[in-house]
Amino acid sequence: MKIVVIAIGDELLLGQVIDTNSGSIARMIDPAGWSIEWVKVIHDDAEAITEAVDEAFAAADVVLTTGGLGPTKDDITKLTLCNYFGGEMVFDPSVLENIKDVFSRRGIKLNALTEGQAMVPSSCRVIQNRVGTAPIMWFERPDGKVLVSMPGVPFETVQMFESQVFPQLLEKFHSDEHIAHRCVIVEGLTESKVAMELDEWEDALPDFVHLAYLPKPGIIRLRLDGRHADGELLESTLNRLHGELCQRFADHLLADADLTPEEALLQRLRAHGYTVAAAESCTGGNIAHRITALAGCSDCYLGSVVSYANSVKTNILSVDPATIEARGVVSEEVAAQMAEGVRRAIGADCSMATSGIAGPTGATPGKPVGTVCIAISTPARTISATYHFPGTRDRVIDRATTTALTLLAMTLKK
Amino acid sequence: MKIVVIAIGDELLLGQVIDTNSGSIARMIDPAGWSIEWVKVIHDDAEAITEAVDEAFAAADVVLTTGGLGPTKDDITKLTLCNYFGGEMVFDPSVLENIKDVFSRRGIKLNALTEGQAMVPSSCRVIQNRVGTAPIMWFERPDGKVLVSMPGVPFETVQMFESQVFPQLLEKFHSDEHIAHRCVIVEGLTESKVAMELDEWEDALPDFVHLAYLPKPGIIRLRLDGRHADGELLESTLNRLHGELCQRFADHLLADADLTPEEALLQRLRAHGYTVAAAESCTGGNIAHRITALAGCSDCYLGSVVSYANSVKTNILSVDPATIEARGVVSEEVAAQMAEGVRRAIGADCSMATSGIAGPTGATPGKPVGTVCIAISTPARTISATYHFPGTRDRVIDRATTTALTLLAMTLKK
Repeated sequence: MKIVVIAIGDELLLGQVIDTNSGSIARMIDPAGWSIEWVKVIHDDAEAITEAVDEAFAAADVVLTTGGLGPTKDDITKLTLCNYFGGEMVFDPSVLENIKDVFSRRGIKLNALTEGQAMVPSSCRVIQNRVGTAPIMWFERPDGKVLVSMPGVPFETVQMFESQVFPQLLEKFHSDEHIAHRCVIVEGLTESKVAMELDEWEDALPDFVHLAYLPKPGIIRLRLDGRHADGELLESTLNRLHGELCQRFADHLLADADLTPEEALLQRLRAHGYTVAAAESCTGGNIAHRITALAGCSDCYLGSVVSYANSVKTNILSVDPATIEARGVVSEEVAAQMAEGVRRAIGADCSMATSGIAGPTGATPGKPVGTVCIAISTPARTISATYHFPGTRDRVIDRATTTALTLLAMTLKK
Repeated sequence: MKIVVIAIGDELLLGQVIDTNSGSIARMIDPAGWSIEWVKVIHDDAEAITEAVDEAFAAADVVLTTGGLGPTKDDITKLTLCNYFGGEMVFDPSVLENIKDVFSRRGIKLNALTEGQAMVPSSCRVIQNRVGTAPIMWFERPDGKVLVSMPGVPFETVQMFESQVFPQLLEKFHSDEHIAHRCVIVEGLTESKVAMELDEWEDALPDFVHLAYLPKPGIIRLRLDGRHADGELLESTLNRLHGELCQRFADHLLADADLTPEEALLQRLRAHGYTVAAAESCTGGNIAHRITALAGCSDCYLGSVVSYANSVKTNILSVDPATIEARGVVSEEVAAQMAEGVRRAIGADCSMATSGIAGPTGATPGKPVGTVCIAISTPARTISATYHFPGTRDRVIDRATTTALTLLAMTLKK
C-alpha cells in the first residue's frame, strides 16, 4: 500500500510555516507497516495541485492532501479537486451544522465567510471535522485509489487523521505481513564511530531487517525495522538483534527503547523514587519546557528557577557572589552551586543546572560562544563539567538541554 | 529564477525528523525576490533521487538538494549524483583537510568512515563545508542550470547556504525587479473575521501587490508582498497600504512589523525601560524558553520560576495556601498572586503568570482540560483572566504562552 502526501500552501514554501503534518502522519501509519513514498509541498495554485495529484496517483494507492482549505481567498484546493474529480460544488447542511457546533464550543459566532466552508464537491464523501471548520473530503476513483483532502492546521490534521481518516483507510487497505521495530538510544558517540563499530554486524543482518541511523543533536537513535510473513520469527530475530545492540553499547546506552532524553530521565527518576528540579541560565527554561511537555511529569518534576540575572542566582539559588566574582558566572563552581541551590530552594532529590554563553554575543577571553557549564546533583553526588557546543544560539540551547538531561539520566543509571 | 528543493532522507518520511531546511532556505532567498516552486521529500533511494532531479530540472533553473550525505550506509546521494552527471568518484585532498580541521576544532579524531567523505564526483565543484564533514557539491549543466547538493543537518545547511551557496547563486542569477514586503500582526480576531473586514479592501489592491494570511495559534500575520520594476512606486504603495492595515486593526494590532509575540513584548518593555519575569505552572518554562531564544533578551528579562508543585508556588512565590484551598490552584486569584509574587521574588517591573490544565488528564468539575488562568502584572495594575484553549497538551501550552506574552504586550501598548 503506497501513500503520497501533498502539502498545499504558499506559507509552507515561503518558510512561514513548517510542514509538520507529513511527519505526524508517517508516525501514525508506521505501526500498520505503511510508509510514505514521497511528500510534495506545493503552492496554492490550481495547476500545481492538479499536476501533483496526477503524479501522486501514478505512484500511490492513497493520496493525502493537507492544507489549502481555509476560508480566505488564497485557498483554492476545494474548487480544484471538484474540477479534478468532476461534479459540482453543493451546499452540505451537515457541514454547516458541524461548523456551528465547533464554533459554539469555542464561543465564536458564525460569519458569512465561514458559511462558505459548507460548500463541498458533489464527487466526495464528507468526513466531519470535529475540531475545525474545514470539512475533510474523501474522493474515490473507479480503480479504488483514494484521495483524502484534510485541513492544514496541524492540530486538526493530526486529530482527524488519527480518529477518522486512518481507521477508514485501514478498513479499506489491509495486509497480512507483520512489521515490527526495536530502538536503542546511544549517547556520547559520533555517528561515524557507531557506524564503524557496527560495520560487520550490519552486513550480517538478515535481509528482512534494516538498520536506520537517526542522529539527533547529542544522541543517536538506532532503529531496527523488520517485516516478515512469519510474526514469531520476526519478533525473536528482532529481540536477539536488539539485545546485541544493547550489549555492544552498554556504556553509552541512554535507553533500550525509542525514548527522548527527557523520557529516559523520568523513567530513571521513577525507578529511584526521586523528584527533580532545574536551575537554568543559558538554557532559559528549555529543560523545564522539554520535561513538562510530557504528560504526567508532575509525579517527579517539581519546578525550576530560570536564573537569567545574577541577582536571581544569588537571591533564590544562594549562589555565593564571591564565587561569581572569582570564577565567573560561567564556571563549573557556579553551575554546581546552582544545582545544589535549586535542590534546596525547591526541595527536590535531584537537579540539573546550566550556565553558559548561548551567543551570538557574550563571549569573554577563554570562554567562547558555546561554552556551557552543566552540573547535576543527586543525593549521592554533585558533578559539574564544561562543554563547548558548536553553532547558533538555538543549537547551543538545544545541545545544552539534551546534555543536562542525558548527564543526569546516565548518572542515575549507575 | 525558479528554485526547487529536494529533501533526501528516510528519516524525513518516517516522521523521525522534520524538514526545516526548505523553510530556512525560503526565508533566506525571499529578500532577493526568489521563491521555491515546490519541495519534494524523498527516500534515500537512487531511483527516487534520479527521478526527482529530472522532474526538478524540468521545472526550475536551480535545484537544491539537502541530506543523504552522511557517512553511513543508507546515504547514497553522492554516488547517484555522480552517475547522473557523469564522471567518476575521485579523492579530493582539500576535503580531507577541511574535515580534519572541522574535527580538530571539535576535539574529535578522524576515523576511516569519515575519510570516505573526501571522495567526490569528478563532475562537481566542491564548496568546503566549514561546519561539518559532508562536502557541498555544485553541479552545472551545459544549459547553465545548477544543482547544489548540501548536507541535511539543519545547522550545516543554514550556515553553508547563507555564507556560500546563496551568494554564489546570487552572482550567477540576478534580476532587476524590485521586491518588498510589509507585515502586521493582529491578535484576538479569527481569520474569517479579518478576511470579512478586508474583503473589499483586498479586491481593490493593485495587481502587483498580494495579501497573504498567515495564521498562527492566537495571532494572524498579514503580509503584503509586492514586486515591481519601479522601486519607488512599490515602496510608496506598500507604505500606504501598510498604514491602512495598521489603522483598520488599531485595537488588535500586536505589531506593525513581522514580529513574534515575544519580540513585540521585548520591544514594548524596552520602550518603557521595564524588566520582566514569569511564574509558570502549566506553561512549564515555555514563556522563558520563547523569550530567551531571542539574543540580547537579558537587558529586560531577569528570570522565571517554574512552579509546577504547589510547594514552589507557596514557598518561592508566596502564594497564600488559603487561596489555593478556597479557589483551587487553577484560579484567577492564584495566577494573580503568582504574577505579583514573582515580581517581588525576582525584582522585576512586570510579570506574566500561568496556572492551568494542559491535559490530557487533570480536569476537575467546572475546569476542563484547556482551562488556563493567565495573569499579568505591571507597575500600574495586575490583570487576571481565564481562557479555554482547545486541543492537545502541546497546543494548550503553546496557546497559553502566546496569550500571556500578547496580553502583557497589549497592556503595555496602552
